[in-house]
Amino acid sequence: MSDLSSTGRTRHRRLREQGRSDRASLFAVLQAGFVCHLGVVSDGVPMVVPTVYGFDADYIYLHGSVASQSLTQTTTVCVTITHVDGLVLARSVFEHGVNYRSAMIYGVPRRLDSDEKLSALRCLTEHIAPGQWDYARRPSRKELAATTILAISLEEASVKVRQGPPDDADDPHDVWAGVLPLTGSWQPPVTDPHATRPVPAHISRRVGTLSPA
Amino acid sequence: MSDLSSTGRTRHRRLREQGRSDRASLFAVLQAGFVCHLGVVSDGVPMVVPTVYGFDADYIYLHGSVASQSLTQTTTVCVTITHVDGLVLARSVFEHGVNYRSAMIYGVPRRLDSDEKLSALRCLTEHIAPGQWDYARRPSRKELAATTILAISLEEASVKVRQGPPDDADDPHDVWAGVLPLTGSWQPPVTDPHATRPVPAHISRRVGTLSPA
Repeated sequence: MSDLSSTGRTRHRRLREQGRSDRASLFAVLQAGFVCHLGVVSDGVPMVVPTVYGFDADYIYLHGSVASQSLTQTTTVCVTITHVDGLVLARSVFEHGVNYRSAMIYGVPRRLDSDEKLSALRCLTEHIAPGQWDYARRPSRKELAATTILAISLEEASVKVRQGPPDDADDPHDVWAGVLPLTGSWQPPVTDPHATRPVPAHISRRVGTLSPA
Repeated sequence: MSDLSSTGRTRHRRLREQGRSDRASLFAVLQAGFVCHLGVVSDGVPMVVPTVYGFDADYIYLHGSVASQSLTQTTTVCVTITHVDGLVLARSVFEHGVNYRSAMIYGVPRRLDSDEKLSALRCLTEHIAPGQWDYARRPSRKELAATTILAISLEEASVKVRQGPPDDADDPHDVWAGVLPLTGSWQPPVTDPHATRPVPAHISRRVGTLSPA
């Protein structure tokens, strides 16, 4: 597995022991979630917008309305994905922290043209809700036209992971210390009051499985 | 409860039915989580960094190492907090989405001076891990000096909430539709291998309670 590029932006400056530079770590973070935070600069001011994503071997895909301000960027954006795995409860307040896995991806978004949109939307839909592409109604030509899809290369990325117990075992303050884990899990589906069909297996089988929020 | 300010940046442009403009909605989002995404501009490029926060009636507080690049900002930053409550599984792929609660806060961070740091750190610690301020060892003078704390006013903020079933009940594609809820919950604590004390009640009582990741 090749390494992630190391640029001035993605080089691990601080807490280097938490940095990962292999592509497998990046894909593990991408696979474990479906919501990212997209950072853009608008009139010189940063704007951070939560949005869903899909990805393949080369790109992360974001989508939204053609009217969406955050999807009109032609300069570098930053996409951050974060999974919070627990609280690190140390002996000292100073060493308190969070166990997490996160990825930051930098790139100039490419706006997909109509020919490319459908396969990117399929990738995105199947990442978020596997089975729904074949089950739900696929986008009409009009719906596709109303949708912007951005592709951002996975080339320039950095990954950070912090796991395990607190780092202050040598602190003389003699109290309990450890980690309070946090997990996300899918709950039983809530059927739309107007729906008459039963919950399909590709949805119900997710109940109880873990997923970061 | 007074309204949030409406500026060009926080006015709800799109999906206005999802916008909230009351301060109670902002505090509900702040209260329900502890990790935000801080957006800054560095050399003209956006950078989105996950970090923990605390807050009071007027400010959100972020902290980190004095060496942290994202905490040296003297221009406007954007802090976004997002809770993902479930997947909206519609009849059409187009209407698929996420139930969520999110807040965006814009402000020029103020770097707290040493006299103010301790109370802000207490606020932050007690938000993330209630009871730990009195239980763990408080910051030494040296640790405080190594910590940057930013206060960002809650004045300019916007809140968006999407809940409930899909919006396409009128779509003729006759399939199951509904919401697949996602919840985060605290798991049994994992004791540090070097700790000899039992898990204190203020930690163990959180197990099983809900929290967004």
